[in-house]
Amino acid sequence: MLNFNSGPAALPESVLQEAAKAVVNYNDTGLSILSIPHRGHLFQAILDESRQLVHELCGLDDSYEVLWMHGGGRLQFCMVPMNFLSPKHAAGYIDSGHWSKEAMDYARHYGDIVMLSSSAEDNYCCLPEWPEVISKALSYVHVTTNNTIYGTQWPKLPKIAAPLIADMSSDIFSRAIDYTNCSMFYAVAQKNIGPAGATLVVIKKDLLKKANHDLPPMLSYAAHANKGSVLNTPPVFAIYVSMLMLRWTKERGIAGIEAENNAKAAALYQEIDRNALFYGVAKKEDRSKMNACYAAHNKAHEKAFIEFCSKQNITGIEGHRSIGGLRASLYNAVSLDDVKQLVAAMQAFEKQHS
Amino acid sequence: MLNFNSGPAALPESVLQEAAKAVVNYNDTGLSILSIPHRGHLFQAILDESRQLVHELCGLDDSYEVLWMHGGGRLQFCMVPMNFLSPKHAAGYIDSGHWSKEAMDYARHYGDIVMLSSSAEDNYCCLPEWPEVISKALSYVHVTTNNTIYGTQWPKLPKIAAPLIADMSSDIFSRAIDYTNCSMFYAVAQKNIGPAGATLVVIKKDLLKKANHDLPPMLSYAAHANKGSVLNTPPVFAIYVSMLMLRWTKERGIAGIEAENNAKAAALYQEIDRNALFYGVAKKEDRSKMNACYAAHNKAHEKAFIEFCSKQNITGIEGHRSIGGLRASLYNAVSLDDVKQLVAAMQAFEKQHS
Repeated sequence: MLNFNSGPAALPESVLQEAAKAVVNYNDTGLSILSIPHRGHLFQAILDESRQLVHELCGLDDSYEVLWMHGGGRLQFCMVPMNFLSPKHAAGYIDSGHWSKEAMDYARHYGDIVMLSSSAEDNYCCLPEWPEVISKALSYVHVTTNNTIYGTQWPKLPKIAAPLIADMSSDIFSRAIDYTNCSMFYAVAQKNIGPAGATLVVIKKDLLKKANHDLPPMLSYAAHANKGSVLNTPPVFAIYVSMLMLRWTKERGIAGIEAENNAKAAALYQEIDRNALFYGVAKKEDRSKMNACYAAHNKAHEKAFIEFCSKQNITGIEGHRSIGGLRASLYNAVSLDDVKQLVAAMQAFEKQHS
Repeated sequence: MLNFNSGPAALPESVLQEAAKAVVNYNDTGLSILSIPHRGHLFQAILDESRQLVHELCGLDDSYEVLWMHGGGRLQFCMVPMNFLSPKHAAGYIDSGHWSKEAMDYARHYGDIVMLSSSAEDNYCCLPEWPEVISKALSYVHVTTNNTIYGTQWPKLPKIAAPLIADMSSDIFSRAIDYTNCSMFYAVAQKNIGPAGATLVVIKKDLLKKANHDLPPMLSYAAHANKGSVLNTPPVFAIYVSMLMLRWTKERGIAGIEAENNAKAAALYQEIDRNALFYGVAKKEDRSKMNACYAAHNKAHEKAFIEFCSKQNITGIEGHRSIGGLRASLYNAVSLDDVKQLVAAMQAFEKQHS
């Protein structure tokens, strides 16, 4: 089955096979990965290797802490302001889509928020302007690097005067980018990292020192860091599979992955632009290489195309429920060959319907 | 390997085999369970069946909502007071051990707390008195039904005048108990329910109506209930394996499980009391049927016994790091036969060392 779901997303067959083996018998220990103690040496080795891999893949030095949290970007939407929104200094949010707006709305529960720019008036079909001036007095600035629903993506992240906090849920590890321009970045696992149920959080130790410490430990990044991500029982299996996926990512290398991601996006957008039945929904310059959002000129063709694909074992190409249309998510585990099959399906469908 | 870990704990072989199969190919869909959409019919069926099973196993009618949350009891320690601690009415906590005390300490961040009774002065080796009078003006009363670290367990839960909220993480589904005396109960999955990474929360709809609604949706029980546990991407795999375990629980029946749990606890405690080298740490009347905590008269025997067991493929019998000693966790997936092998090991060890 070719799986273009936006997340939980496809994972490589080799990762699935190894994960399945571990569910029955982890590394010949006679124990299931689901039943190993989270404070024992077996899980500690998984945690250590996963952290080392994140440091390597992102090019980070020891000034960053790598944390695994329980799943859910929305918990980060709460924890970021709880930890870093000072009562004296507002936080800035860049509004590039549903998820960035939701992060901003969550933060309003905890203090003053400034919307630095927004593309809401364009229905988020393009990126907003990057704010020209960013005050260093802001507690932090929050940005969503890739907008899954609308298919837009920031091409790079500049260094700014305030601490930059990036939600990279849907494009982490997909390209070479200067992660060190961020004081914090986070990503839910279920796109480029692993299965649903874990969230990767990377924070500069400097920022941690400024965090609000008057929080119950479970909601404090500093407390999680102090306990090495085993403040409580972590989602062991989700972290283990993420570690396998990080190994797979390292084997291919970020440069190799980026090259294939560029080729995948080029192949699909070329077809979207060529095919008489379809059109892309995002502004061309702002197009995401992770989520290609498109639609049919004739709405009836969308449902028909989804059914057509289904017969060819292609799944997950419905657009997000909030905007409809079509969407193919091209995360790292989706190959160029997978995309070529989708392109072929679009061409065959065009022949049938024109 | 015989696994007496306190959690993540042993799971039945049949559950592990089916889970492993699903990681590669879920129900012959050609998709991994890790890559199915969380809003599609495949996962909806898993959610629906799991909720139905919880209703059946706990004898609940439609006045209760069954929710799956991201993992971690400590997140519940935050959410319970966030949602239910009124600014006008204190909440009562019964302090029977480390986890109940931590729940109470977390709640102090959100309002007034009254400690209704405590066995801290006895180092939690017994249960505190159940409070004689409980004011109906309390926002709620929180109790931990089984104390994993000290090996004590409340034999039953009475009806009280205020809403009773029970942390049943380590003894849910282990015995017949009147769940309807609780307005809410919750349990992390990694003991009697499934793998780490999911938490089961059951709440009376009446109580939900009284909840604080001025919360970011991710921290609001009512918002999770409104969205049928897919407010955000849930920990799909952990919920799926939990559903398999709930099926297994139903096949055996709570009465059958309780009878075996009674036999397991009787066999182990009988040996602890008989064996000249060991002694039980909890007061006999308050002993837990889920976690048998014991120690050696000669401290050196503890380490030696752990090594002795290791050679016989018995694992997970170290006491909690905070109190040391020995502990065998007897959750539902541990069989009477497993316990008999541990008893035999204790007897063989005694012969060697006396």
